[in-house]
Amino acid sequence: MSHRIGVCLSGCGVRDGSEIHEATLMLLAIDQAGAEAVCMAPDVAQAHVVDHRTGATTPGAERNVLSESARIARGAIQDLADVTVADLDALILPGGLGAVTNLSDFGTAGAGATVRADLFRLIQALHGAGKPVAALCIAPVLLAAAARQMGIECTVTIGSDPETAGKIEAMGQVHQPCAADGVMVDMQNRFLTTPAYMLARGPAELFAGIEKVVGLLIHLLNEPKGAG
Amino acid sequence: MSHRIGVCLSGCGVRDGSEIHEATLMLLAIDQAGAEAVCMAPDVAQAHVVDHRTGATTPGAERNVLSESARIARGAIQDLADVTVADLDALILPGGLGAVTNLSDFGTAGAGATVRADLFRLIQALHGAGKPVAALCIAPVLLAAAARQMGIECTVTIGSDPETAGKIEAMGQVHQPCAADGVMVDMQNRFLTTPAYMLARGPAELFAGIEKVVGLLIHLLNEPKGAG
Repeated sequence: MSHRIGVCLSGCGVRDGSEIHEATLMLLAIDQAGAEAVCMAPDVAQAHVVDHRTGATTPGAERNVLSESARIARGAIQDLADVTVADLDALILPGGLGAVTNLSDFGTAGAGATVRADLFRLIQALHGAGKPVAALCIAPVLLAAAARQMGIECTVTIGSDPETAGKIEAMGQVHQPCAADGVMVDMQNRFLTTPAYMLARGPAELFAGIEKVVGLLIHLLNEPKGAG
Repeated sequence: MSHRIGVCLSGCGVRDGSEIHEATLMLLAIDQAGAEAVCMAPDVAQAHVVDHRTGATTPGAERNVLSESARIARGAIQDLADVTVADLDALILPGGLGAVTNLSDFGTAGAGATVRADLFRLIQALHGAGKPVAALCIAPVLLAAAARQMGIECTVTIGSDPETAGKIEAMGQVHQPCAADGVMVDMQNRFLTTPAYMLARGPAELFAGIEKVVGLLIHLLNEPKGAG
């Protein structure tokens, strides 16, 4: 049976949801690796809606995170609340501002952020089962926040942005600088992180990092924790 | 100078705009080939808005094609009305229902369809200049409609769907069946078409066809019409 890799989306668009290139190229890399993508998103209202042409927030606009995420998943998507650790071999969190506004309150709470309760429980259960969790772009702050909530220490990368790195350190976690096409592997926690569009200058450079993350993830899945 | 390849979007989502995987993987293939993508979309209201979780049209919902397309382009997008033949070396039309509802009226008019005036003028000018135009998925019907409007005959593929193929033939154009990862090349008109998600079963198979289209497009650009 092929590996089932969860992809937790947060909407559809870099400024108020999941970064579309990161999510789509992750689905490509998963399919190319012969694994199965299991898309999910929370059934909640978006924190805000942004006009991606102007960058301005649209006052009064309402969109649902699950319905918008379904655009990226082409309709094949589950309610995050219905997904359990038994359904997945691994989980990936693409970036985009939705990760810090719809999946956590990092966008407003910074170093004091917590992860949405259903997503936190899923990350906690995967971590407890030795199943890997990967995060791209800004989404590694969710792993840092979840680690603090679990009372453990982890190492992640968001590239080189000093402000975000400082907030990760303020959570009591370790930030490691990393190049656009590099991957930070925290073997103890089985957390994989890559800067993606925090640093990548275009889709080709972005895909180089994403291919590496998926390759390492598959490697970990083929070599269960403690096997060495 | 790198080749400038226009990508005309029609919104953001397979059911009411551009198919996100097709558009994003096209941007990846263009970047990997060392060419420059020039994204564009019309500044008009979408014909309709579809909830991609349920497939139902959302009554009264309004979205702007250019603003939604900007989600795929990460903000780097131009109004289609401002783009001229001098700005481009080639043009690509990704699929998604937006191609036949926002860029043309094929969705309602079928074989009697016409292409939006600004897009028709751009296709006509590119054709006249010997610059290639490619189309994916359902979007080849726009090339068939544009060819009829120009009074010429072309050959395209949308894969194997007999109903759509019949409408292309009813336009006085030639439809050629094609596999998911194949490309129909109409050398006379410099039109390239591939079935994309009309037939592809996932992102990996989709990308195989898209890589071929971009490879052939670059080959044509490096070998101008009449050079042989």
